[in-house]
Order: sequence, then structure tokens, then C-alpha cells
Amino acid sequence: MSKKITSRSQDFSKWYNDIIINADLAENSGVRGCMVIKPYGFAIWEEMKKVLDQMFKETGHVNAYFPMFIPKSFFTKEASHVDGFAKECAVVTHYRLKNDASGKIIVDSNAKLEEELIVRPTSETIIWDTYKKWIKSYRDLPLLINQWANVVRWEMRTRLFLRTSEFLWQEGHTAHETESEALEETKKILFLYKDFIQQTLAIPIIEGLKTDREKFAGAIETYCVEALMQDGKALQAGTSHFLGQNFAKAFDVKFANRSGSLEHVWASSWGVSTRLIGALVMTHSDDRGLVLPPKLAPYQVVLIPIYHNENERKLIISKMTTIAKQLRALGVRVKEDFRDTFKPGWKFSEYELKGVPIRIGMGPRDLENQTVEFARRDTLEKQNISVDDIEKTVLEILKTMQNDLFLHAKSFQEKNTFVVDNFDDFKEKINVGGFVLAHWDGSSDTEDKIKKITKATIRCIPLNSLQEIGECILTGKPSHQRVIFAKSY
Amino acid sequence: MSKKITSRSQDFSKWYNDIIINADLAENSGVRGCMVIKPYGFAIWEEMKKVLDQMFKETGHVNAYFPMFIPKSFFTKEASHVDGFAKECAVVTHYRLKNDASGKIIVDSNAKLEEELIVRPTSETIIWDTYKKWIKSYRDLPLLINQWANVVRWEMRTRLFLRTSEFLWQEGHTAHETESEALEETKKILFLYKDFIQQTLAIPIIEGLKTDREKFAGAIETYCVEALMQDGKALQAGTSHFLGQNFAKAFDVKFANRSGSLEHVWASSWGVSTRLIGALVMTHSDDRGLVLPPKLAPYQVVLIPIYHNENERKLIISKMTTIAKQLRALGVRVKEDFRDTFKPGWKFSEYELKGVPIRIGMGPRDLENQTVEFARRDTLEKQNISVDDIEKTVLEILKTMQNDLFLHAKSFQEKNTFVVDNFDDFKEKINVGGFVLAHWDGSSDTEDKIKKITKATIRCIPLNSLQEIGECILTGKPSHQRVIFAKSY
Repeated sequence: MSKKITSRSQDFSKWYNDIIINADLAENSGVRGCMVIKPYGFAIWEEMKKVLDQMFKETGHVNAYFPMFIPKSFFTKEASHVDGFAKECAVVTHYRLKNDASGKIIVDSNAKLEEELIVRPTSETIIWDTYKKWIKSYRDLPLLINQWANVVRWEMRTRLFLRTSEFLWQEGHTAHETESEALEETKKILFLYKDFIQQTLAIPIIEGLKTDREKFAGAIETYCVEALMQDGKALQAGTSHFLGQNFAKAFDVKFANRSGSLEHVWASSWGVSTRLIGALVMTHSDDRGLVLPPKLAPYQVVLIPIYHNENERKLIISKMTTIAKQLRALGVRVKEDFRDTFKPGWKFSEYELKGVPIRIGMGPRDLENQTVEFARRDTLEKQNISVDDIEKTVLEILKTMQNDLFLHAKSFQEKNTFVVDNFDDFKEKINVGGFVLAHWDGSSDTEDKIKKITKATIRCIPLNSLQEIGECILTGKPSHQRVIFAKSY
Repeated sequence: MSKKITSRSQDFSKWYNDIIINADLAENSGVRGCMVIKPYGFAIWEEMKKVLDQMFKETGHVNAYFPMFIPKSFFTKEASHVDGFAKECAVVTHYRLKNDASGKIIVDSNAKLEEELIVRPTSETIIWDTYKKWIKSYRDLPLLINQWANVVRWEMRTRLFLRTSEFLWQEGHTAHETESEALEETKKILFLYKDFIQQTLAIPIIEGLKTDREKFAGAIETYCVEALMQDGKALQAGTSHFLGQNFAKAFDVKFANRSGSLEHVWASSWGVSTRLIGALVMTHSDDRGLVLPPKLAPYQVVLIPIYHNENERKLIISKMTTIAKQLRALGVRVKEDFRDTFKPGWKFSEYELKGVPIRIGMGPRDLENQTVEFARRDTLEKQNISVDDIEKTVLEILKTMQNDLFLHAKSFQEKNTFVVDNFDDFKEKINVGGFVLAHWDGSSDTEDKIKKITKATIRCIPLNSLQEIGECILTGKPSHQRVIFAKSY
């Protein structure tokens, strides 16, 4: 009750933060720019990992682990890569502390590393240094490896889940015989991400290609999945990079091809991160708190007894324990909150705030009638149902809710996608918020100018979109396809 | 075939390394002291994680994630803690790189951190700084939290899995109302580790208490599980620490107890790491390669066809595909190696080296007789069995092998545990290798002297061991219980 949530209309950014904090997802730590992911938030990440890891394995990928430290010399081998990351690197320079004369603990200047180590912002360089040892012949290819890891990109202005100096992610790094095979892998993962995010997170996305200005430092092409948040800002939800032979050349990784000659290896890399939890919050939640898609909810159903005396308590808890068992047998994740130290009303708000998809309450009259009060988090609908119908109804509603959340977000995205043909309309729509589809002349210079004027960037050049003749909204130069502009996280 | 393994008798340490490298478990990286855990090695770690994580959750623990950087000031708050870890800390001092005048990439001296950050060697300090915010009243207790993470302890002399500067582990950090509850948790986890290591890794262990000299920096008491390797050296396989109120006092974490007064919180912490993979290798493997307990084997069964022409190939592969399906339906992890680029003999050695518990081969005559050649990795026994018996036999042998590996290691441990009553016998047995049970007067000074003379340390004071009157092997002073000495990893 005391946990108050700012409304979205009042202050979207404060609303977001209130939900993260009050639903116990994460909080700022005593370390500048780094967050603590609390058990409830981490349980959502664990569900995501489980689904995604399974999808990677089913498509032939295996997990491995590479060092989190990268020698500075590795890091600098691919020129555009180091340019992209140099400004946000945590650097390890010493390997020992000691007591100074006064007994204070200080860094031991005698324990200075000969070569500084960078805490990985991403692992292409250390991994390609390793692949050099693993790849000799086409028989060693493809290598389809993924890593679940923490990475560090030093940030001055941070926001929980969306931008923190340390975050958790997975990074895939694959090596192939041919350009077309590496490109195929890049796109396969793009669509795997699309399926995962749409089906599991219930977030509709648009897949496309990044412009040269927005692509990954070291990539030939970056593909991405872009989502639209409730405040009309875009969020990059995942990226898949076609690296060409850039890292193979930087680390001199060659293989004997099928005709016996030596060739540089072709590569892809791809990742999604704990940022997805931020996307989840900003897509589905409301002014009452978190709303979770059933597939990711740590608890899908919460059971709350309502009673006035010990006798009622016993009888209701006994009945609810049976219900919990029945639901668990169906694979439903159930939380029984039978604590006597909190009142039912407090519990109702608490689990609403935490986005538990289904709440089942039972009071003395329910017990008498063999019914329960069944409440659905997304629509806030309540109904009394018979105890005999609980299993069927729970399974049905979990499925419906997963689907409804997606459709609801999809409808929001569609309503907030605008097609514009001149710069005035463009500026107006960008200010309103949403995806803005407009023609662009293809030059980085124009892209920069538009960004300077409107703060909007090209989120992506959508794949498989309509080819149509048009004129760039800024320069009037010819264009053959619309791209998606938006302000973004 | 070209992968040669040194025999244990010739050079145990080289044998160990040969197995790690040739069975594709791990290798040294381009970063001093850090290893790459290769997909096959990582798959073993994933199986361990899965089992252990389940055990933690079943006992009420939840996962969370805390920052990997620890401000130096946090680190120094618990005096004995910082003393224990100061000499092996990786220290982050800067957060940016830049180009110097000549275009070389250097650390940007303008981007020096005001306060240095330590890469976590363990997370007590950052976690207790966080718990201060979470704990106000006894209602907030107990906190039963675990974290799966990478940690760094700078090492000058490293060995794959056993001692590397970065390693993976889990660390539990719990907070309790009372001393007895925290102690109970410490011991509960000790016995959980014992069950896990004995039942899943098939490694017999002895549980006990560390002496003051060997306990964790910051603990009141450290409990441990100790295993005996095939070369007669001991290996600490896991530790569970009773922290008393040490960290609560250092970080000023108090709670309102049931009688309303403020009290410091009681704590435990505990962990096991990727070191367990080293223990696994040194307990079960032989001169032909890795031997894996079925519960942890990434593939429990490998299927290898033997044929001389395309027709045979087709028929045998078709039959083996059916067998694979049947086994998978039973939950068995199966690898089908139908590659035409490698000969059966090569494959036989390869999977022997990799410790796959069961190898099933099928040639033209087998196909005719509807039999397979069934080979067991631990005993190297082979037998022909009927195709109809495969499912039953696989399940049976996997179970038997898991048990046999434990019994075999247990018998080795018993044969190499010696009871001695004077210092000459002690020195002799310590030189031979094994656990040596001897009386000790309880003083750290005596412990030091024995270590200096023999290189043996007290591995633990066994729990529930016989209370008997004796004399310290070095000083002759009275003792009431034998402790376990050994040389160790």
C-alpha cells in the first residue's frame, strides 16, 4: 500500500523506475553504474535464459566460456572495433593491494601489469584469438559457440536494466567456410531472436538492417530487432552481426578450404541482454505495476486465503494446498502466500504490483460454495469460478493472456507507426513518439542532420519491406524504400 | 591416435594436463592465468550447475546477481577479509582508452577512477553492503541467496581448473536471526555439498572443520569437504563458512528482533567452483583418458557404425538412428557419430579419451545377427548384446557405473588413509601420499612447524570422528581427536 507508483502519463521515466524498484526487480548498488538484480528480477532472467538456451541448442549451438579480461593488444587489432569501444572500457592495471606506512590499504605500485587488461565489453577479440588455435581446416567448421557472461561498458548516465556499466548477456560467435553460410547464420539468429521475443516476451518487433552509422564496431552488417515502448520510444532488443572476414583478418585465422588453399574464416556474432527485462516492463506494465507474460512469470498463479478465525484458516489453507498440488502437477508455477503476518488486501496489491498473471482468492463463503475468486492481472477482470474448473481455467487463461499481451502490444505498435512524406510531418510525429516510416537518401550525412534536428535515429531498414520510389524527407534526393525513424533508448 | 596421454605413474601432473587438453575440456588462453573452458568441458559444468541449482532451490534458496566490481573501501571494512585477499586482487583504475599523439591506443590518464574497484574475489562485502538496505526486521529474515558468477584471484602459478586467475563458481550468502540458525544453514549446505559430490560426481569426501590457519578470511568457522586424488594429494572440493556477525558488524547490518531490540544479523557463505572438474578428472580418469560418471557425461552413449560399403552404411545408420531415438525417449543423452570422414578406430579412441560411459558399435555381422558391440568405459569390458536388450542394458549399466565409480574411488580413499602415531611414520606416509590421521595438539604453531617440515597441512578436523585420548605427533602434548593431514592441491 505504501508502495506508490507514478502514473505513466505523469512521468514515464519515473513510472519505469518505480516499477523496477517496487516490484523488486533490481536496484542501484554501491558501485557507480552497476545494478543489483534482485531475486524476483533474476528469476525472470532465468526463465528467459532457459528458453533461449534451449533454442540455441536445438539449432546446433554449444556453450563455452572465455576469459573476461582482454589484453589491450588484442583489443586494438581490429581498428573500427577498438574505436567503437575505447571510450567505455574498464581497465585493470594492477594485481595487488598492500598496506601503506600508516596501515591504510592502497594499490601496490610494484604490482603493475606489464600490459593492461580490458574487462570485456564484448568478446570478439579474445574469442578470435582462441579460434586461431581451433581452426585449421574446413573440417573444423562451422564453429557455433555461445557464451552466457557479464560484460562491462562504462556508462556515465545509467538506468536500471537499460543502460548499466555491467550487464548480463549471451554472445554467440560463429565461424564458417563461406560468406553465404555466415550470412545465413546471422539471419537465422535474427529470426530466432524475433521468435523468442515475440513468443516468449510477447513483444512485437520489427527486424531490419542497421545503417552504417549505427552498426556494430567491426561488423560488415548489423541486423537488429526493434521494439516500440509505451512512451513511443524505440528499444533495440537484440542484434546479429555479419562480421565478414574482419576478425579473421585481424587475428590471422585461416583455414584450408575444400580445394586445399588457405582462406580467411567468415564470421557472425550476436547477443541479447538483461536489457530485455527493461523492454518487458515498458511494453506490458500499467499504472498498477508490472504485468508479466505467463511464460516468463516466476509465479504464474498466487493463492491467497481470506479468513476471520483459526478454523476458517485451517479449512481454506487445506483446500488451497490441494489446488496448488493440482496446478503444479500440470506444470504451473504456483506461489502459496499463507502468511498470517500480512492482510489479504496487502497481498492483493503486492502481487498485482509484481505482475503475477493469475490471483486466486478464497474466503469462507467461497469455501462453502466450493468456488474461488479468480483475477486476471492484464485485464484486471475478476470472476467466481467453481473449484472443479480451476485447472482448466488456469491453463486456458495463461495461454490467452500470453497471446492477448502480444496482440495488445502489436495493436499499440501499429497505432503508433506513422508514414510521413515531408519533414514537417516527420518532426511532428517524431515529437509525438512512435515508429516513423520515411524515405531517406541513404547518406550518413543526412542521417546525422536529421538526428541533430529531431533527436531521431534510423532504427532500421526493415527487411522485406515494400520497394517504392520516393524522396528523402530532408534532401528530396531519390530513395527506393522507407526506413524506420524513432527516438530511442 | 596422435593424441598421446602420459601415464599416471610416469608423470601425474603431465597426465592431468594431457587429459584436460586432449579431451577438449579447457586450455590456456592468451590472457595470463586465465583459461578457456571448451564446449565439452563446459557441458560438464552445465550438468553440475543444473543438479546443484535444483538442490539449492529445493532447500529454499533463490538466485540473484550482484556487481562484480567492489569499491576498495567496501573491501577493507572487514579486517581479516582484506588481509586474506589483498595479495591477489585485480584492480580497475581507469575507465577509458584513447589514442596518443602517434595514434597508439593507451589508457586515458584523465579517466582515472576516484576510488579503485576490485574485481570480486568473493562477494561478501558487496552483498552485505546491499543486505544493509534489505534487512530491517526479523520478518526480512532469513535471506537465502545464491549467485552463479565469475571471480578473480590473481595467481602466479596456475593449473587448468585447479588454480586459475579467473574461475566460475556459485556463492551462497545467507542472513539469519540467530547464531544457531546460521550455523544450521552452514552445516546444511556442507551436507548438501557432500551429497552432491558423492552422488553426482561419484567422489567420496570427508567432511570436517578447517583449523584457524586454514579457515576463510572473515569466517568464525569454515567447514569443508575434502577429496583424495589418485596421486595421494588432497583437494578441497567445497567450503561452507559460518561468518558469525563479522560482516554484519563491518557493514552495520542490524535488525529489529522479536523482542523489538536491534541486533546484528548472523551469516553464512559457501561455494563450489569449476575446480570440481579438476577433482573429477583426478579421481576417475585412467591412462586412456577421461572417465566420466554417467550423471555428468555430456553424452552418456555414443553410437558408431562400422561398414565397408554404401549399402551397409545406410542399413546400419538407419538401425542406429532407431536405437538413438529409443534411448533419447528414456532420457539418455546420445551422440550419433555417423561422420564418414573419420574411421571407426579413430572414433573409438576419441570417445574413450573423452570418457563417454557407453560405446555402442554395429558392423555388418551385428546387423545380420541383430546385435551390437557394447563397451563400458570404466572397466573397458565389451560384450555383444541383442538389439532388443539395448534399452534395458543401457539404463542398468549407467546406474551401475555411477555406483561403481564411487565405490572404486571410496576403496582407493580407504586404502590410502593411514593412522599413524609417531612423527617418523607420519613423514613416511605423507611422502607416500594419502590421508594421514594423526593427533595434533591444537596449536597453529605446531601446525606451521609440521607444514614446514613435511609440506603437509591439516585438511580438516573430521566431524563426528572418534574422540580418543592421544599425543600430538610433533609435540607429544595431549589431544582428544585425530585430524586429517595431507599434501594438497
